Amino acid sequence: MAFRTRLQVRFSDIDPAGVVYFPRFLHYCHTAMEDFFADELGMSYARLFAEHRCGFPAVHLETDFRRPLRYGDAVEIEVEIVKVGRTSVTWRYTLRAADEIAAEVEIVTACIDLDRFRARVVPDWLVRAFEARLAPGLGID
Amino acid sequence: MAFRTRLQVRFSDIDPAGVVYFPRFLHYCHTAMEDFFADELGMSYARLFAEHRCGFPAVHLETDFRRPLRYGDAVEIEVEIVKVGRTSVTWRYTLRAADEIAAEVEIVTACIDLDRFRARVVPDWLVRAFEARLAPGLGID
Amino acid sequence: MAFRTRLQVRFSDIDPAGVVYFPRFLHYCHTAMEDFFADELGMSYARLFAEHRCGFPAVHLETDFRRPLRYGDAVEIEVEIVKVGRTSVTWRYTLRAADEIAAEVEIVTACIDLDRFRARVVPDWLVRAFEARLAPGLGID
Amino acid sequence: MAFRTRLQVRFSDIDPAGVVYFPRFLHYCHTAMEDFFADELGMSYARLFAEHRCGFPAVHLETDFRRPLRYGDAVEIEVEIVKVGRTSVTWRYTLRAADEIAAEVEIVTACIDLDRFRARVVPDWLVRAFEARLAPGLGID
Repeated sequence: MAFRTRLQVRFSDIDPAGVVYFPRFLHYCHTAMEDFFADELGMSYARLFAEHRCGFPAVHLETDFRRPLRYGDAVEIEVEIVKVGRTSVTWRYTLRAADEIAAEVEIVTACIDLDRFRARVVPDWLVRAFEARLAPGLGID
Repeated sequence: MAFRTRLQVRFSDIDPAGVVYFPRFLHYCHTAMEDFFADELGMSYARLFAEHRCGFPAVHLETDFRRPLRYGDAVEIEVEIVKVGRTSVTWRYTLRAADEIAAEVEIVTACIDLDRFRARVVPDWLVRAFEARLAPGLGID
Repeated sequence: MAFRTRLQVRFSDIDPAGVVYFPRFLHYCHTAMEDFFADELGMSYARLFAEHRCGFPAVHLETDFRRPLRYGDAVEIEVEIVKVGRTSVTWRYTLRAADEIAAEVEIVTACIDLDRFRARVVPDWLVRAFEARLAPGLGID
Repeated sequence: MAFRTRLQVRFSDIDPAGVVYFPRFLHYCHTAMEDFFADELGMSYARLFAEHRCGFPAVHLETDFRRPLRYGDAVEIEVEIVKVGRTSVTWRYTLRAADEIAAEVEIVTACIDLDRFRARVVPDWLVRAFEARLAPGLGID
């Protein structure tokens, strides 16, 4: 089953139209990715940065906004790995509030060496961890 | 010629990898859209909200991140209208630093009635203003 | 005993010096106030806004920053009511990481009527709720 | 005459009460400090960080919020140096919109060596630059 995490829409997330400012949806996805590393893989993204000098910046993303999120909404975010490449990983995030889909986000991230800010091969132990959690019906490059 | 505006990468835009946090790119696009309304159309987005109760929230977006932005970078953002629909407008943003493309962003926005948060027809005067500024070679629904 | 809540320092909270950007400390305090309303008073700040049209914007604040917060730090925030005035409430927030004080913040908030954005008397039921939780040794105007 | 810089209240700065979220006032002050370094001292804060490994994090601050800022407001920020200590500098920011004071902020910053994140003596050339711009009637430790 896919990893899920929860957050609250906060006061400061709201824009003058009374709904969550759209770039915050991407921020929510990043916090969900952080939760995925810490709670699902047992390796916090902070530690991955500090000890392995390895990071996953976005290189491409697509988002469908389906319904607005409002102040006080409880948001559930489903995190799926949809593809593991040699030097990239593709993530899919589904944001739901009150069981309705609020947004669907797909983010292609590069695996980079933080000391040189250059693409690198995804470490073996991460490939294995990601593969074991691939969304059903999806494959590996 | 397409509308262009400029901003500086600020201290607070930077993430632990030393580059601009990726959701900030979308925020930059929104500030560029605000500048487009104020400086190109002569109608600030604040006034469009307050007086016309009309807004343009994102319903779909795609982004290609080409190179990272760093603290102190001067960013030029080109704003193009690529499609004017009955109830939607599609925008393209090209972010450049030192004449290199940092990101390309396409955002489909719905035109909404802010009092009911429901889709509405794009006002005539805005259709005309957008059409007059359509990116070359592009059309209208 | 004072109300306490917890949060994680997130990726996006970090500035180019590798520590939490100082305005985020005030944001953390606001999220702690939101948790206080929801978890301690059983009335979310969102509901207070929507149903009672009552809010508590900051009118004065003082902050001592004692030690930096870093990416991945678990932060515990203690929320204390230190004064209940006729139209204002004073809050004290103590932020700790690894049992060391990271910052002490005192914020005077006005009670306002959101429809007119004007000061109003703190509602009786809130005065009682705040008084019952006054920090030891502190009084009421 | 004191250094002044300007900014616009942006869409994303607004909270559910329709006014600028209070931690953003401190963010505005930081951007004004960045403008002060670049435009008044001719040394961008980015370059001070990168080349001199010297930064000025906040260690204490006080803020009086006088009137709310709203979406579309043009904000003028006056930056004054009020005290130059051996290892600290005290700044005063006055934020105005439509010639009315919106907020007054005083921030004590430590001078730190970024490589060790430890207090250091303010570099001589900066002491001279700050002294030459001390707010009238104010002195040096």
